[in-house]
Amino acid sequence: MPALPRQIRALLFDVFGTVVDWRGSILRECRALGRSKKIAADWDAFTDAWRAGYRPAMARVRSGELPWMTIDQLHRRILDGLLGQFCVDGLTEDEIDRLNRVWHRLDPWPDARRGLALLKRRRVIATLSNGNVALLVNMAKHGRLPWDAVLSAELFRHYKPDPQTYLGAAAMLGFEPSEVMMVAAHKDDLRAAQACGLATAFVRRPREQGLKVKLDVAPEPSFDYNARDFVDLARKMAR
Amino acid sequence: MPALPRQIRALLFDVFGTVVDWRGSILRECRALGRSKKIAADWDAFTDAWRAGYRPAMARVRSGELPWMTIDQLHRRILDGLLGQFCVDGLTEDEIDRLNRVWHRLDPWPDARRGLALLKRRRVIATLSNGNVALLVNMAKHGRLPWDAVLSAELFRHYKPDPQTYLGAAAMLGFEPSEVMMVAAHKDDLRAAQACGLATAFVRRPREQGLKVKLDVAPEPSFDYNARDFVDLARKMAR
Repeated sequence: MPALPRQIRALLFDVFGTVVDWRGSILRECRALGRSKKIAADWDAFTDAWRAGYRPAMARVRSGELPWMTIDQLHRRILDGLLGQFCVDGLTEDEIDRLNRVWHRLDPWPDARRGLALLKRRRVIATLSNGNVALLVNMAKHGRLPWDAVLSAELFRHYKPDPQTYLGAAAMLGFEPSEVMMVAAHKDDLRAAQACGLATAFVRRPREQGLKVKLDVAPEPSFDYNARDFVDLARKMAR
Repeated sequence: MPALPRQIRALLFDVFGTVVDWRGSILRECRALGRSKKIAADWDAFTDAWRAGYRPAMARVRSGELPWMTIDQLHRRILDGLLGQFCVDGLTEDEIDRLNRVWHRLDPWPDARRGLALLKRRRVIATLSNGNVALLVNMAKHGRLPWDAVLSAELFRHYKPDPQTYLGAAAMLGFEPSEVMMVAAHKDDLRAAQACGLATAFVRRPREQGLKVKLDVAPEPSFDYNARDFVDLARKMAR
């Protein structure tokens, strides 16, 4: 159980899955692409495989096996493999590039915009995502997300959960780690932030991986907040 | 004269003097501080000396004579010297720190917020300032400036006019230099951006250095736009 309530001056948000519904957004675009190009593929499996490829690819960058590259570049490497694997043929280079940028056009969860506006009133709200800056800026314009700052693993050349990301973001905003709270739907992200001295808020996103996958969304007392969504978090923080 | 109109997808804004009125804002705070602490000093000269100290201090960082440090740190070094020089005595460390952060609380020029909102509709708008990220984020909250992204020399560990800043900002937003336009009230900043292949917009801020200093605010045909203020720039870009 956290001790005394801390003075939280900035909130850092994980983005994929926490702020935006990557799976629903990508599925919709892939299905529309399939219809318009007359490509029959298992788009559910395609979408899940794309996302599943991201952790091992990132791990290879974190270990130094691959040189630093952005998520746009990692997504493209994975995509190039999946197009063959799922027999998705006949796309031009422009169409593949546009498909790769679907990650720039992910839709926010229904509560996200309103919750962020509430949380922004008294605190700095910023992304802290493994997504690159261009991706996050385009996504914010697409979803009208009112960030005070767009911070990314790209700025620190380290991917979460490396401590350089959490500590770097707090320092860049001019705050002590204890004045900053990580907000995420992923407990491993929060535990890594906690180990760096940040406060933590867990937000339930039970449908992040679709209806068939049952995620662990149980509240945990080790987090400073456990919230249903961003509006609920804003209410709890206002108490 | 610029050739064909280019497709401008992002605008990068110089901040001190271009977006915010540093001189008026600092003078007001210094005079208020003087009254409350009963310190009689020539606050006009003090303010001008503080700003004048910034270029040589930054030049020492750019040349490598000083290690990398943020503008907050440079402002503080200069301030510590000025307090003695102007016989400003009796401030506590907290009061000096608060005074140093007056740069985080600069007020926007009257047209800035409205002009930025107009320019933001169809393009990415971002800072590209020598101010550090924390300073720029706090300033944006203070002045309700609706940036899509807060980019700073701090991210590139190079101060403007080093080319790494202009080229780094364009790349970080995912655009070619020719798709990005630098907006500034300072012709040297624009010329450096131009040398990197960026488009340029000059905005007149004739009172940046007060009423007594006559600045060169003549339009120049080598810039893509010459505007009276941000609202005028938005109108000209909409044509």
